[in-house]
Amino acid sequence: MVFRPLTVAGRPIAQGRLPAVCAPLVATDTASLLEEARRVAALQPDLLEWRVDFFRAIADTPAVLAAAHALREAVGQLPILFTRRSIREGGQPIPLDEPGVAELYEAVAASGTVQWLDWELSADAALRARVQAAARAAGLQVVMSCHDFARTPAPADMLATLQAMEAAGADVAKLAVMPQSMDDVHALLGVTLQAAQTLPVPVVTMAMGGLGAVTRLCGGVFGSALTFAVGSAASAPGQMPMADVRAALAVLQRATSG
Amino acid sequence: MVFRPLTVAGRPIAQGRLPAVCAPLVATDTASLLEEARRVAALQPDLLEWRVDFFRAIADTPAVLAAAHALREAVGQLPILFTRRSIREGGQPIPLDEPGVAELYEAVAASGTVQWLDWELSADAALRARVQAAARAAGLQVVMSCHDFARTPAPADMLATLQAMEAAGADVAKLAVMPQSMDDVHALLGVTLQAAQTLPVPVVTMAMGGLGAVTRLCGGVFGSALTFAVGSAASAPGQMPMADVRAALAVLQRATSG
Repeated sequence: MVFRPLTVAGRPIAQGRLPAVCAPLVATDTASLLEEARRVAALQPDLLEWRVDFFRAIADTPAVLAAAHALREAVGQLPILFTRRSIREGGQPIPLDEPGVAELYEAVAASGTVQWLDWELSADAALRARVQAAARAAGLQVVMSCHDFARTPAPADMLATLQAMEAAGADVAKLAVMPQSMDDVHALLGVTLQAAQTLPVPVVTMAMGGLGAVTRLCGGVFGSALTFAVGSAASAPGQMPMADVRAALAVLQRATSG
Repeated sequence: MVFRPLTVAGRPIAQGRLPAVCAPLVATDTASLLEEARRVAALQPDLLEWRVDFFRAIADTPAVLAAAHALREAVGQLPILFTRRSIREGGQPIPLDEPGVAELYEAVAASGTVQWLDWELSADAALRARVQAAARAAGLQVVMSCHDFARTPAPADMLATLQAMEAAGADVAKLAVMPQSMDDVHALLGVTLQAAQTLPVPVVTMAMGGLGAVTRLCGGVFGSALTFAVGSAASAPGQMPMADVRAALAVLQRATSG
């Protein structure tokens, strides 16, 4: 079984291996963002996620664009996922309304500094259309995402969520859930496998927290194209240090290719 | 969820952590067995499995007993699982019939050199009763086992097999299967979880080969009490080097306890 990897300009990242390793950037201003980015890039993630909801000047579009350009320069060719996570789905409070966020996404898309835009499935459909149009115009991909920090939905509902993302035009479908039991963790892996075998786009999943940590290591063999690991600071519960994730993935890689 | 670890004299091995790591010994004569045991013990497995079907003098009971005593002396307190694997379930051809094997087990049990006896569920019931009686008399435990090197049975059948072992008086229930797909691997993990949550004995499972290798690392979080790792040589397909397994388990341990 060969699962779909993330791509940039049609080419697989991380040599097509699953999962690619993404380090979140959670700095609050430009200087610390660049410092964080250089430090994290040295750990050789396959991509970075700029969690712009942590960025204090998020409502100042020129400041965000300047930071985006400086970030791009700081990390060279490393692909970047641009993400405003909503409070509802685990993000930080920000001084922007939803149309303001969509506008910011349009400006960042046009800047040519990032490769993916993360947009939550639950957000307003009209705004989503704007973001998708901006991504298309700039040749970017949209990671459609859904996060449940309280529980793990029933398997059929999780699969339906991933399918709904693809139906809504997602280039990548991402689902994060909070397990209450190892049965939930097992269910998430089953849904991952089913989605990765049937959807025409890469699938990204994780069960959060300590219970779900195993999915951040072994999710790739069940079809998850991406795992988040800590470069400088975690952006969600259960993320492991990048060196740990790399070490465990290397073991799995050797074993499954043997 | 706390799953049942393997025990020796009522006390959990490996500080009760799942999975304990077992290295198989596959030497063909006493001298190389002792050499292998010393080399493997230095890698600090939690227990050893002596695969006596590899031992050329298996039909010479005094020779086996002498080797068992020498092995015990060579590895100190390290617990030992004594295993004759049948050809039918992936073992080596041996010049002993089944009653002869049961007799050998009786002699080894009485020698006080090992902590567990592996006995296949599919073997003759009368012989099993003899082996169980010998184990009871010597204060040993019986790991009842089942190996399917061709395929992965349906989940209900796998669960029934583990339940049948417990019903037959197993102290530990062990199931190894060969996956044909990641769906099989996922099913094996689900059965593991279900069995570990419901059976009153420790459960040991693995999906073999490259496809199943992930179960040798993450099976413990789904309730498998034991994983087999290569000390000197693999005894089944998909086993990974002990240092690799230890490294990956340490990552998981840190993450799941965090």
